[in-house]
Amino acid sequence: MDEESYARAALTYLAEPGDVRLGALIRACGAVRMLDAIKAGRLPDEARDAVGDAARQPTTQQPPTHQRATQQRAMERWRVRLEQLPEPGEVAGFCRAGIRLIHPGDPEWPGQLADLGDAQPYALWLRGTADLRFSCLRSVAIVGSRAATAYGSYVAAEIGATVAARGWAVISGGAYGVDAAAHRGALGAGGVTVAVLACGVNVPYPAGHKDLLEAIAVHGVIASEWPPGWNATRLRFLVRNRVIAALAAGTLVVEAGQRSGALNSARHARDLGRRLMAVPGPVTSDLSAGCHHIIREWQGVLVTSAAEVMEHLSPVGAPADLNTGAVLGRDQLDLETATVLDALPARGGMGLAGIAVKAGLDPVTVVRCLGALAAGGFAERCDEGWRVRRRA
Amino acid sequence: MDEESYARAALTYLAEPGDVRLGALIRACGAVRMLDAIKAGRLPDEARDAVGDAARQPTTQQPPTHQRATQQRAMERWRVRLEQLPEPGEVAGFCRAGIRLIHPGDPEWPGQLADLGDAQPYALWLRGTADLRFSCLRSVAIVGSRAATAYGSYVAAEIGATVAARGWAVISGGAYGVDAAAHRGALGAGGVTVAVLACGVNVPYPAGHKDLLEAIAVHGVIASEWPPGWNATRLRFLVRNRVIAALAAGTLVVEAGQRSGALNSARHARDLGRRLMAVPGPVTSDLSAGCHHIIREWQGVLVTSAAEVMEHLSPVGAPADLNTGAVLGRDQLDLETATVLDALPARGGMGLAGIAVKAGLDPVTVVRCLGALAAGGFAERCDEGWRVRRRA
Repeated sequence: MDEESYARAALTYLAEPGDVRLGALIRACGAVRMLDAIKAGRLPDEARDAVGDAARQPTTQQPPTHQRATQQRAMERWRVRLEQLPEPGEVAGFCRAGIRLIHPGDPEWPGQLADLGDAQPYALWLRGTADLRFSCLRSVAIVGSRAATAYGSYVAAEIGATVAARGWAVISGGAYGVDAAAHRGALGAGGVTVAVLACGVNVPYPAGHKDLLEAIAVHGVIASEWPPGWNATRLRFLVRNRVIAALAAGTLVVEAGQRSGALNSARHARDLGRRLMAVPGPVTSDLSAGCHHIIREWQGVLVTSAAEVMEHLSPVGAPADLNTGAVLGRDQLDLETATVLDALPARGGMGLAGIAVKAGLDPVTVVRCLGALAAGGFAERCDEGWRVRRRA
Repeated sequence: MDEESYARAALTYLAEPGDVRLGALIRACGAVRMLDAIKAGRLPDEARDAVGDAARQPTTQQPPTHQRATQQRAMERWRVRLEQLPEPGEVAGFCRAGIRLIHPGDPEWPGQLADLGDAQPYALWLRGTADLRFSCLRSVAIVGSRAATAYGSYVAAEIGATVAARGWAVISGGAYGVDAAAHRGALGAGGVTVAVLACGVNVPYPAGHKDLLEAIAVHGVIASEWPPGWNATRLRFLVRNRVIAALAAGTLVVEAGQRSGALNSARHARDLGRRLMAVPGPVTSDLSAGCHHIIREWQGVLVTSAAEVMEHLSPVGAPADLNTGAVLGRDQLDLETATVLDALPARGGMGLAGIAVKAGLDPVTVVRCLGALAAGGFAERCDEGWRVRRRA
């Protein structure tokens, strides 16, 4: 485990995610120096240039001396958790247990998180086979009420399944109701789904979703800003929502009451310039009131089907077959993924073991790369295993 | 019966409504001369200046000689029905039987029908107690599928009842499904409702609505462009729809399939510059597909309640109490209506007989005027009878 990765991992223990003061300091000094500074209890000299993202935290627009004092107070807060800090060996242990850590600069880091400015995650803990970056390239967040009606669950599952079958990743929060229906729809269609949790990626929360989360880890990926084993809190759900909105090209609200947390995700999506969509429902249903509000106020467009979702998220004037083609150039693939792609047959199909031998890579890496290639539109499953995806 | 009224009545027998050629000729020569001309089989000299509304009938943009020949052919068509023409005594007989005829220039003629240009009705046959002009001053057309679901019927009745209780007239087509629910909602709330039929005002069509139509005649008004006793045809429903759209300040589509006739009304409303609204529903319901199309294509706004309907149809920035105040000045009332208003007490209430004595008018006229005053926001029912409506 390199120094940068360990520092990033450590910071997820010390500070709650979305802290724009820490984000600004990392931007100015780097994660390694910031970890050292917190341990030493003394701000680095470069810290005086670190001004938090003004748009997100207007109160940081203060004179330099105040700024410095505020930073120092924030650091005292981060120091409170110093004794929870894991040793590098413990972090490496997680990675052996199927959990990996990614941070800005990693091949798997989704670059669009930079749109969050200083509120972007310090790092993300991941568990699962799918490549997060590739999965999110063509993705939609499907969110909504935990207390979804049969109607909301049906629509979420149906749209989740249809977009997943067309190669789109379904991003959601792993909660009861709309989230679960969307994840299950995508899994049922053999597609990729991403669960962004407000607790550790290995925490079975909610308890009733233990099996669902395991299935997501097998066929998709679970992401979290909090260290393994940590529990969710009410505030963390709201903080987490900005990541769901930032990862996806667009957010679809399926059912939401007037005060639903899903509207918080919707607001993040709009603030980030992502496309916002809402599913209408009976005006007699309180759980459609939030969706109708979004449409009435022209914050988002009304969609009634998966086809309309994909149409809305595809570039204007793009050919219809774009939805099934690759979303980025082969030269943008990392070396391992490109090697696996080279090993794939154009006709027929090849099993996992054969691909591993041909590519000279271990099967676990091959599975990860295949997930990335499938999400990116380069590869597809067939009866005989895997093959290069044909252009429409 | 004056000459103009008889001529207008006669023209409703000879030509199908919405004939822009006849509309243009009436505009140029007057109804009396046109009736004489059709009887004589020879166009008046002024007819050469009569060019049909170009926007509605582009083919009339022809050279004068062609224009003249086309007019002559149209006149031959109108002459086909000459033998059906009633004697003035027969028309007067209808009026004794509770049916009245109104035409442009009458106090009860809704001036907004002029927005239909040369396609405006030659005249309207009416049956019922409410004053058509006053009723339509603050009104909403509620239209939708004949095969409405329980959901659609519920929403139509609920919105119809709520707007009617606030003094808005509900205009619809008297058909099964959404139309019936909207009419019934308004009647149940003690409000005014207007049925615009594609058959004679005394024809119980559909048969199952005999009682509903009678109730509308007692508490509202039935209007038609076709003479008493005439039957509806498929085409007449579509021709009729433009009148519903033109009469109302806005049109609300409650439920409509992709090919519903209600979308025809919606198109007329948009073409006439009226406000168009649609109620969302489950995306799984084919009968909400037309509504969702309207909202998605930004042809109309999504509304979920009667309050939103009234808000959308009230002038921007108007005070909230506008919905309960008078919609026009007292000086715009005709003499009889103004006399009845003068006779009303400001406190307590007065019965029909007392008002008739005080105003020096017969009870039938008083009932008609009270309907107009109620629709116009000047008067209201109370336990003791009628009184001047208090400002909010």
